[in-house]
Amino acid sequence: MTRVLVWNEGIHEKRNEEVRAVYPDGIHGAINQLLKVDKTIVVRTATLADVEHGLTEAALAQTDVLIWWGHLAHQQVADEAVARVQARVLQGMGLIVLHSGHLSKIFQALMGTTCNLRWREADDREVIWTVAPDHPIVAGVPQPLVLPRHEMYGEYFDIPAPDELVFVSNFTGGEVFRSGCCFRRGKGRVFYFSPGHETYPIYHRADIGRVLINAVHWAHVAVPHAVITTQSPNAPLNWFVGETT
Amino acid sequence: MTRVLVWNEGIHEKRNEEVRAVYPDGIHGAINQLLKVDKTIVVRTATLADVEHGLTEAALAQTDVLIWWGHLAHQQVADEAVARVQARVLQGMGLIVLHSGHLSKIFQALMGTTCNLRWREADDREVIWTVAPDHPIVAGVPQPLVLPRHEMYGEYFDIPAPDELVFVSNFTGGEVFRSGCCFRRGKGRVFYFSPGHETYPIYHRADIGRVLINAVHWAHVAVPHAVITTQSPNAPLNWFVGETT
Amino acid sequence: MTRVLVWNEGIHEKRNEEVRAVYPDGIHGAINQLLKVDKTIVVRTATLADVEHGLTEAALAQTDVLIWWGHLAHQQVADEAVARVQARVLQGMGLIVLHSGHLSKIFQALMGTTCNLRWREADDREVIWTVAPDHPIVAGVPQPLVLPRHEMYGEYFDIPAPDELVFVSNFTGGEVFRSGCCFRRGKGRVFYFSPGHETYPIYHRADIGRVLINAVHWAHVAVPHAVITTQSPNAPLNWFVGETT
Amino acid sequence: MTRVLVWNEGIHEKRNEEVRAVYPDGIHGAINQLLKVDKTIVVRTATLADVEHGLTEAALAQTDVLIWWGHLAHQQVADEAVARVQARVLQGMGLIVLHSGHLSKIFQALMGTTCNLRWREADDREVIWTVAPDHPIVAGVPQPLVLPRHEMYGEYFDIPAPDELVFVSNFTGGEVFRSGCCFRRGKGRVFYFSPGHETYPIYHRADIGRVLINAVHWAHVAVPHAVITTQSPNAPLNWFVGETT
Repeated sequence: MTRVLVWNEGIHEKRNEEVRAVYPDGIHGAINQLLKVDKTIVVRTATLADVEHGLTEAALAQTDVLIWWGHLAHQQVADEAVARVQARVLQGMGLIVLHSGHLSKIFQALMGTTCNLRWREADDREVIWTVAPDHPIVAGVPQPLVLPRHEMYGEYFDIPAPDELVFVSNFTGGEVFRSGCCFRRGKGRVFYFSPGHETYPIYHRADIGRVLINAVHWAHVAVPHAVITTQSPNAPLNWFVGETT
Repeated sequence: MTRVLVWNEGIHEKRNEEVRAVYPDGIHGAINQLLKVDKTIVVRTATLADVEHGLTEAALAQTDVLIWWGHLAHQQVADEAVARVQARVLQGMGLIVLHSGHLSKIFQALMGTTCNLRWREADDREVIWTVAPDHPIVAGVPQPLVLPRHEMYGEYFDIPAPDELVFVSNFTGGEVFRSGCCFRRGKGRVFYFSPGHETYPIYHRADIGRVLINAVHWAHVAVPHAVITTQSPNAPLNWFVGETT
Repeated sequence: MTRVLVWNEGIHEKRNEEVRAVYPDGIHGAINQLLKVDKTIVVRTATLADVEHGLTEAALAQTDVLIWWGHLAHQQVADEAVARVQARVLQGMGLIVLHSGHLSKIFQALMGTTCNLRWREADDREVIWTVAPDHPIVAGVPQPLVLPRHEMYGEYFDIPAPDELVFVSNFTGGEVFRSGCCFRRGKGRVFYFSPGHETYPIYHRADIGRVLINAVHWAHVAVPHAVITTQSPNAPLNWFVGETT
Repeated sequence: MTRVLVWNEGIHEKRNEEVRAVYPDGIHGAINQLLKVDKTIVVRTATLADVEHGLTEAALAQTDVLIWWGHLAHQQVADEAVARVQARVLQGMGLIVLHSGHLSKIFQALMGTTCNLRWREADDREVIWTVAPDHPIVAGVPQPLVLPRHEMYGEYFDIPAPDELVFVSNFTGGEVFRSGCCFRRGKGRVFYFSPGHETYPIYHRADIGRVLINAVHWAHVAVPHAVITTQSPNAPLNWFVGETT
């Protein structure tokens, strides 16, 4: 079983009728539906308005993979919550950052860069290409995956070079974007996936659901390594047991 | 189920009593025993002396992951067999190259470099350190993993920079070695793991078995991506179907 | 001084009036003109028709960076010449592979993969984006660099993940391509750069010249490291001198 | 000319006679001496005690590469100063972090991880091996570079996988360490180099000076790319000029 917490800011859906029409159960509700196809995944959801944003120590302790969607209220996420999430990722929790989450505090903190990018809302067609065909995240994903209309996200995307670059997108207007990027941080794994603007029905698509399910399994480090990383230990000579066989 | 073919040159065991004492069932036999712990792995074995070295199209077609041990007879492996193995790796078969397999034709062909390294047989202690604690290959592996006596393999190891560096070894004499290296080639995955000299009982150790089992699962691309890589196709404008939703 | 050898197959220009009109002095002649802007670069040229293709030991020994353009006659390049070039790259010579050189023997040998890709000649606009703004190859290169008409080269491009991904291209038809890729092999450096179809006047552009000049300097390893990689040396205990300061 | 600012905490030298004996002019003074060998490098120094730690906007604006040595007082470095340094790195300034600087705020901010490691002060011999012989940082560096006595820094070192791994160290006690690591962040470059404990005369060695000089040149991005990364610009359709040639 993989325990997923889908975190959604949850503001667009309240304020904007257009978004509500696309996502009547919220963006988190739609992502929940997509993940349900896989019976080995158990989903809970949380939003900014929840106590401690639903990101308590207890909630994170029961989370294998956290999915993050935010846009309008990045600055309203408490620094303490961000620190808790970062610590959990470094200890082995998976993190999937979606779309406008590129400017979330948690993503910036894990990347060390601005995470800025170029954007446009003009109904560009986005064509998503797999560039790592051995990768578990692309299993069963069509080549290419076509989004007939989507917000443009374009380079330069100010991130560290991904440990694995999985998807690259083409936009009608002439831009490209590294739309699927894997990172390793501490004992945990991070996947950034750019599709998912709030007014395009991206999270109702089975192919996008396939990517998310694959990403959940990739990001889930089932057996976190025993190595201790929360301190810099003093290690006396011969601290490890030499074998004598 | 993951179908593994353990390929062993199989010459040391015939010629050398010391090796036979350590590996009475051959190195392939010992690796077979280690993998048997995992009931989802099915093992077959093959050696240089087999017809077409046991590396026929039919045999490879039924192989998810090929494990390769060779040393004395790299040049006796037929170029046709090497070409078949390379083609299968690029199509999605996993390949695990062990120890002195660093100078095998198949590893050199996939790397594009000489794969030379420094070596010494002097009973060095090898201490193997995990440097990628998120990686599935290190799950359950002790930090460090100590081999009380082993052949020294030292830098500079003439390989491309690994896509993921998993293990680094320390030797008593002062050398270091990138002892666990992941590579992606085409639609397939390659893992090089240096432990396993023929006169040290490395392949009787459960911790080494854990690494091999983990590596088999990592290298097994369960759903090879549909993308065609065996040719450079001419793609007319609008060759992919644009959606209209 | 950086000594560059521009190698061009040199067949299109002889057979095809259209190509001759674009490149009256040959593709190698045009590249020579682009590089001349930099007074620290000394250029020689060679073609397939030259003795030993102009790739003798002596010629390679005097070459810091080799630029390679080929298309129609990859199979006519002698294996011995390819082996010589590969050996020199592994010993520290730079190699810049252009456009259809992706299917050259030398590039395939260094990559270990098929190097296949998707293509189309349909006057696509190619828009080239920098994705590594710290890289010396992109210094002074516009963002984006626009080729109004060019052959389409599209993913999946069957190469190992580049050590540094520098450029990604967008094509009108919806494809993307990793059009500027850095690789390290042995003690040498390899840069693949896709622009340069024979009937588009790519190599008359100053911005493309800027990329090539930058690439020459990046690929030139001025002080090759002293480490020996042409063999696997046996290293006795204490072979290196311990200091006593 | 490359303008280097050597920043040293400057506390050990004041408090501890043993350190003062090794570095009578301070650690920054010794590094200054090492860099002076290269006449294209201009050095200034600054310490924690200076106004704004000597890290004012004006000082950083005149700095191509910042070298950082700190240990006892990481928490006394003002967050504002750290933010200024990070912003400058992302805009193209080079940063070289030495030894115990691994726990500095600036290094942690750029890495996104804890940067913890294992350590021991027990006069281990450190043997430093080049694993990237094409890299400009290793030009002229012996293989191996031996420090007869040094503090042990061992894995697991909690950093993102380096973009380029340049040096790996062996310690007498059995540990290994990724002792030379390159990272790209935004438009800038970061090099971590572990040698340099305050009571070992590391910064009086010409071979260490060679590494530092090489690192300064590698980290100096002479022509920062024009791309704007300080915001996420809205880019209307056809915002870039299509050419008509």
